[in-house]
Amino acid sequence: MVGVVTRTRAARLDPEERRGQLIELGLRMLSSESPDRVPVDEIAEAAGISRGLLFHYFPTKRDFYVAVAQEAARQLLEVTEPDPGLHHMERLHASLAAYVDFVAENEALYIALVRGVAGSDKELQGISEETRAESARRVIEALGLDDPDPAVRTAVRGWVGFIEETTLDWLRNRDLDRDRLLAVQQQVLVHALEAAVATALAP
Amino acid sequence: MVGVVTRTRAARLDPEERRGQLIELGLRMLSSESPDRVPVDEIAEAAGISRGLLFHYFPTKRDFYVAVAQEAARQLLEVTEPDPGLHHMERLHASLAAYVDFVAENEALYIALVRGVAGSDKELQGISEETRAESARRVIEALGLDDPDPAVRTAVRGWVGFIEETTLDWLRNRDLDRDRLLAVQQQVLVHALEAAVATALAP
Repeated sequence: MVGVVTRTRAARLDPEERRGQLIELGLRMLSSESPDRVPVDEIAEAAGISRGLLFHYFPTKRDFYVAVAQEAARQLLEVTEPDPGLHHMERLHASLAAYVDFVAENEALYIALVRGVAGSDKELQGISEETRAESARRVIEALGLDDPDPAVRTAVRGWVGFIEETTLDWLRNRDLDRDRLLAVQQQVLVHALEAAVATALAP
Repeated sequence: MVGVVTRTRAARLDPEERRGQLIELGLRMLSSESPDRVPVDEIAEAAGISRGLLFHYFPTKRDFYVAVAQEAARQLLEVTEPDPGLHHMERLHASLAAYVDFVAENEALYIALVRGVAGSDKELQGISEETRAESARRVIEALGLDDPDPAVRTAVRGWVGFIEETTLDWLRNRDLDRDRLLAVQQQVLVHALEAAVATALAP
């Protein structure tokens, strides 16, 4: 049974706003990589609605998880958007720092996106694949390359994988200074590109 | 109904041998990343047994897929085992070449292991996580480092991610010469380690 007070509160938001509010709460409250462990009751309570109404917006826990992961991926791309006002290396450093900081605040969702998780599916995988592709596209664009040599394209994709693995390792162990992590990540892009260009130019 | 001929053939192998035979056939015949698309009938036919007997060994398609993936991961680690008779760089090159060639022959399983797939679960993820960890352990060992600085450990894990992403990109596009791919992969390990050591030594 939904109480009168709750019903009144629930009525204050239109469906789009309510959806957005639930997703925002999800971003703050999801602490497991498993869609099965969405704390539905806590999220509904924090939103001031019933569990039933939450399931009206998101028919299953997985649907909710996918919507939150989609929003996390969107925000990740937003906060890491390269700043054209900065020079190349500063721009890269700013994006990497924003990436690592965002990940640290959204650890469970990040692992879910990067690894694919129990109960996950093509949809979560698709979100993560698009995020990777967009990250690689940005690097290629920042380098001013329209149609890069396959060796360069591969190196950039590889670097995105390098970022993911080093970030996961950092989250797992928490024994590496954030700025040292960023330094390694940044230098490896430069070196990977040098190696790729040298390889592309080799006879 | 199982025919007499089939039954006779099926009786020739003991359970362990039959299991091994089915997994070997799986390695050769799985061409999809989806456990749902295991060609059960073709595999049973190739083994000369009934579909029912296959499901006796592997109760679900997923069970079969996981067993085949486990064997693929085992073989991958076996073929890439560093050869102590080779010098550092030759050893790395030989392992990388074996890795890339194995992957090219087992594309669907590789993608399933690296990416996690529709219908996949903690078990497939675990296999892939162990394979990554073992690859990183081997590199650390080859470098003669017992207890590496966190920056070095992270760089090695990152490089494993670099290998996975570049190999997936290579499979997807098939426009890069295998030897150029190997050259980029090899050089990036050297550079990533240099960057990590420099970072570890920085004040």
